[in-house]
Order: sequence, then C-alpha cells, then structure tokens
Amino acid sequence: MADRLTLPDTLKTTTLFQSTPLHLDSGATLSPVQVAFETYGTLNADKSNAVLIAHALTGDQFVASPHPITGKPGWWDRIIGPGRLIDTDRLFVICSNVLGGCMGTTGPSSLNPATGIAFGLDFPVITIRDMVRVQMGLVDDLGIDRLQAVIGGSMGGMQVLEWLATYPDRLHSAVALATAARHTAQNIAFHEVGRQAIMADPNWQGGGYYADGDSPLKGLSVARMTAHITYLSEDALTRKFGRNLQSRDAPTFGFDADFQVESYLRHQGSRFVERFDANSYLYITRAMDYLDVADEHGGRLADAFRRAAHVRCCVMSFSSDWLYPTSENKAIVHALNAAGVPVSFAEIQSDHGHDAFLLDVPGMDSMLKGFMTAAAKARGLRL
Amino acid sequence: MADRLTLPDTLKTTTLFQSTPLHLDSGATLSPVQVAFETYGTLNADKSNAVLIAHALTGDQFVASPHPITGKPGWWDRIIGPGRLIDTDRLFVICSNVLGGCMGTTGPSSLNPATGIAFGLDFPVITIRDMVRVQMGLVDDLGIDRLQAVIGGSMGGMQVLEWLATYPDRLHSAVALATAARHTAQNIAFHEVGRQAIMADPNWQGGGYYADGDSPLKGLSVARMTAHITYLSEDALTRKFGRNLQSRDAPTFGFDADFQVESYLRHQGSRFVERFDANSYLYITRAMDYLDVADEHGGRLADAFRRAAHVRCCVMSFSSDWLYPTSENKAIVHALNAAGVPVSFAEIQSDHGHDAFLLDVPGMDSMLKGFMTAAAKARGLRL
Repeated sequence: MADRLTLPDTLKTTTLFQSTPLHLDSGATLSPVQVAFETYGTLNADKSNAVLIAHALTGDQFVASPHPITGKPGWWDRIIGPGRLIDTDRLFVICSNVLGGCMGTTGPSSLNPATGIAFGLDFPVITIRDMVRVQMGLVDDLGIDRLQAVIGGSMGGMQVLEWLATYPDRLHSAVALATAARHTAQNIAFHEVGRQAIMADPNWQGGGYYADGDSPLKGLSVARMTAHITYLSEDALTRKFGRNLQSRDAPTFGFDADFQVESYLRHQGSRFVERFDANSYLYITRAMDYLDVADEHGGRLADAFRRAAHVRCCVMSFSSDWLYPTSENKAIVHALNAAGVPVSFAEIQSDHGHDAFLLDVPGMDSMLKGFMTAAAKARGLRL
Repeated sequence: MADRLTLPDTLKTTTLFQSTPLHLDSGATLSPVQVAFETYGTLNADKSNAVLIAHALTGDQFVASPHPITGKPGWWDRIIGPGRLIDTDRLFVICSNVLGGCMGTTGPSSLNPATGIAFGLDFPVITIRDMVRVQMGLVDDLGIDRLQAVIGGSMGGMQVLEWLATYPDRLHSAVALATAARHTAQNIAFHEVGRQAIMADPNWQGGGYYADGDSPLKGLSVARMTAHITYLSEDALTRKFGRNLQSRDAPTFGFDADFQVESYLRHQGSRFVERFDANSYLYITRAMDYLDVADEHGGRLADAFRRAAHVRCCVMSFSSDWLYPTSENKAIVHALNAAGVPVSFAEIQSDHGHDAFLLDVPGMDSMLKGFMTAAAKARGLRL
C-alpha cells in the first residue's frame, strides 16, 4: 500500500443519499454517497449568490485553494478569489469532487459498505448525469434553490449541459467552455488507449490493487501522457519545444528523454500519478465516452434544452482546440438557440489547444466578465 | 520464449558489411549486417529496370507477396505485380526490411556476434540515413548502378529523402508519399508515449526479454493503438464507427469494448504484436524522431537536395493526413524546387487520413502511373 493515494484528514465532506439511495443511469444504486467539496466566499441571506464550478477529468474541488497533495495553487485560482473575475467577496463559490473521483467523493477507491473493502471494479459505471445528480444533492444540502451560475470547461462543460438538461429550474445562468455534447469516435479512441494502458499494468490486478501491492502507476502515467498530447495544440508544442534537445549538444543516441518534449511528457505523467487514482481514471473517462446528451433526449440535442429557456447561457470554444473543436461547441449553441435558450457564443483565438480554458487567455476573461456581470444584473445581484 | 517472434526459415537474406563495417550516424559500427529482402520481376540485362520500395514503420519486405506470419497479402499488393501499376512484368522490384527491423534484417532481436545473445538495448541507435546506407549496400550487392525509382510512403518517404540527400547519383527518379523531412514535437510526443508504454511493461526487462520469459506484448499493443489513431482521420473514424455500439442494444455499463471503435483498436493492437518486436518498435520510432534532413545539411533543407537536380521527383500528400500534413510535404517540395530538382506535387483528396497512401485512392494511382511512365520514357525504358 506504499504508493496508494493518501488523502489528508482535513478534507471537507458531507454525506448524502443516506435514506434515499442515488439512482444511477446504469440502474444501479449507491447509498450513502460522500461528497468532498470546497467553498469560497459567503452565501448571502437569500442564497442567491451561489456559483457552482464543475471540474474537468483530472481536476478536483481545489479550484481556488492550494491542492493538499501537490501544494500547487487551485486550478482556476487566477479566475476565482477576492476581487478576481469571479469575486468571492460577492459570490459564494462551490466546487465538489465528482462522483467516481479520488479526492474524497465516493468512487472506486472508497470503501464498499457491502464488503468493507474498496469498491475497485465493483463500483458501478457512472455517467456525467450521475455526477450532476450528486452535485444537485449537494446544492439541496446547502439549501440553495437556484444557482446564480454553473460553470465548467471540458468535462466540466459536459456537466453544465447535463445541468441544463436535467435541473434547468435550479439555474439562473450557465457557462460551458471548450466542451462537447457527446464524444466522437476519436475522443473514445484516445480514452480507450489510456484505459488499456492502465489495464495492461500488472499492478492493476483487475482493479483490485487497493488491498495490497503497488498501484498501476506506470499504466496511469502512460494514459496521462497520451491524453496530455490531446490537450495541447501542435502549434503550442512546436512553440514550446520544437525539436529542442535536453542538452544543447548532439542527441545521445539512446532512449533517455533526448528531446525536451519527451522530458515534459514524462514529467506530466509522473506528477499526475501522485494525485490520481487509476480506477477513477477508468470510470471518469468511461462516463465521458458514454455522454451523448442528444441521445438521452430522443436524438435531438435541442430537445435536451427545452426546459431551459429562462437560463442565460454562454459558450466559448478555442480556435486551436482539436479535442473539442469549435464545431462541437457550435453544435451546442445551435441546439440552445433552437430550444429558445439565450446564448452568447465566441470562438476565442488561442494557440494553447484545449488547455486554453485553464490558462490566461484575455479574450476568455473579458467575455466571461461581461457575461457574469450582465447575468448578475438581470437577477438584481451586485457584482 | 513462447511468444517470441519466430521467423520462417524461408526468408531470403544476404549478408553485407562483412569486411568493411557499416558506420552509423551515432559513431558506432555494425558488422556483419544481414538484410532480408524480397524481389519481384526480373532485372533486365542493363540493370536499368530496378525499383526500390522503402517500407513504413511497421511495414516489411513483403510488399507484394503474402506475409509469412499473418498470411495476409503484401502491403502494396494492389500497386505492385504483373500487369499492375508498378508492373513486375517490366520492372524489377526490390523491398528490404529496414535496419533495426524484425523480419530478418539485423536489429535488436538479432544475435550480437560479440556476446552470442540477442542485442536487446546493446543494439546501436540508428537513423533513417543508416537504414538507407544498408539499402545502398543491397543495391550494390545486386550490381545495380542506378535505380529507376525509389518509392516510399511515411517512413518510406523519409528514406526516399535520405536517398536524394545521400546517394542522388544512384537514382533516376524518386517518389515520396505522405511524409516529412523532420518530426515535429507532436510527432515525437506520440512516439514517446508508445515507447513509454513498452518500457512500462515489466516483461520488457530493459529490452532483455529475448532470453527468457514473455515479451512485452501488452505494452507494444498499447503503443500500436496510440499510433493507429494518428494514422486515421477524425472523419474516417466517425464514418467507420461513429458512436456505434458493439451490440445493438444499450451500453453495457462496463469496461469491455462497448463501442465498435474500442473493439477495432484492441484488434489492431493484438494483431500487431503477432508480427512485430517491441525493441524494433523502440529503435525505428527513435530513428524517425531523430530525422531532420535540413539539420543534417547545415539547417537548410534545399541544401540536402543540391546534388539531386537530375532526379525526377514526385511528392504526394493526402488532404486528411494530420500526422504528416500537406504543409510538411509542401516544405519538401519547396526545398526540391529551391535546389533545382524537377518535382511534381499534388495534395490528393481523401478522408482516410495518413493511411491513405496504403489504400485504394484513385487520385494517387493516376498520378503515380503518369509519373512512372514519364520517368521510364525519359530513360528510354518501356513500361
């Protein structure tokens, strides 16, 4: 158990679905469900200033505070905080670890109450909508009737779409960044390679590695490396690394990391496994692959958003994102328009690829700021 | 040794570099070098009808005859044969397994004469130019002064570029398909993920798996799956598989191959490991990553082709190829033009992605046919 992910004792959690179990899309149920979450700022008296942030595949609840394992700043620390774009002096920001995750919310590494040992592959396969059901439970638990906004990029954006489809009455506004309403064959293919890399690691042991032995860190690292390439653009890789060698001299004619891009990828892989669970990676990628919001609503995406006509929406894509390109984001915008949902859309120019939504991209900031301010004003909320 | 690649006894080989060792770009030497090759048709009296085909990363010498392990037709059987586009009733076609390969040419799985056991990682790291040096040795051995053509796609095209740069006097014409004169950071990144997948497999044993134990088949399979995605276009994947499920019913909510694209990728991985050696995959991808034809000639690609002004060249790219896109092929064409080399170029429309050069793409066939006929006529050769 030496390399098993150890969570700090200080995680903020709540326990939900104790008397009524959580009904999952698969038909399975879960009870209870622990939810680990962080909040920033103060909920106002009429509970009208709450903003829910939905994190991406490898994100977590530490959106604006240091990560307890890595010590790094929150993944959207730049955007969220006192006086920042999402101003926690005025807004109450909530971010919870997704169902299936590994930072304190119930997932495959949690203890299965039926057996007293970790779920492993006995954990039920979940969907993005299941993740949102748990978030809804948390929002209820906090006594919030209507979120001022739900905001997310990438898989976070997928959760935003499921909020719009499933709980539109609980939303005043919604922001989806760099996302898609369903995974393409290529998206699924890249995820499947990652899953196969994990399952090929003998330490994986059919998902039962928690009890004893080492974790499948090498497989998880390869999975991360593969995915990481899809998060960057070819231009960004060329600008950042090109064919630069690690040493300034000639190549070594060996298999050590000779090129800077190799060293960078290996680093991404080895840092990732310090804070992530391999089975969670399997479950969360599976949830993303299963997503097909249109299919869940009879095959027409607009029908998913029919009850959301009162929700102010904002969608942004990034010009060099080839994972969830502008075309996929535009399909969402078209469906929202067809459903009569007010939506602002822009393709933000950036050569950072998919990861742009996490980075300092001025065009995104100004659009997000304008949208947030107008949405607050429409509700009589001062930002 | 149960799953070690076993080559048939009937392989056609020759032994070169016996008295004079092969000097490699790394500074190392190899002696002797065994070359496994196939020929089709008959060399004419003045030895003017020889065409050398250079194979791609996972190709081999069985370009127009059944593969001895898989039993499948040659990888360019459609193009090469009696009465076919490259007509072996008139041309003498040679195709040799590359240096570092695993189908009979000296590579990491060959016996190291210094130790009497397989090289493994004691095999020197090689370059594309080293592969071409060995091909040159074979051409000399066959007594051919000037090849009517050297033809290759992908890594085969890289070899064509090195022929133009290193042995232009031995060429009458050259055809490079779907290729690049250097690997980009993204190209290197995808290869590095594949190498890491192999090295993460405990069966790899630092490359020393030949002596005993199992081969790193799982790692090699993951490497193949990753690379395979880059050989196809997103459109081709969508057209072929979309989000189609294996069964016609609902998803299984499990980790078996639920989507057809998953099953397809797993199949690609498992078929590949039956006929390929993991260490060869490491060495050949490394050679591709090291390729930078301009860098080898002072930094200006045109300078690489300065001595090739008499060689008739043809370059083709494929519109949906994102591995070696049209821009990379055009860079080659610009350099050839700048060096005064006559070159025909076309971007062939196809949604098959990089693999288009291996498939039945009419635009490619007609251009190749026209070029081959004109080049033969210019030399007084009747096709």
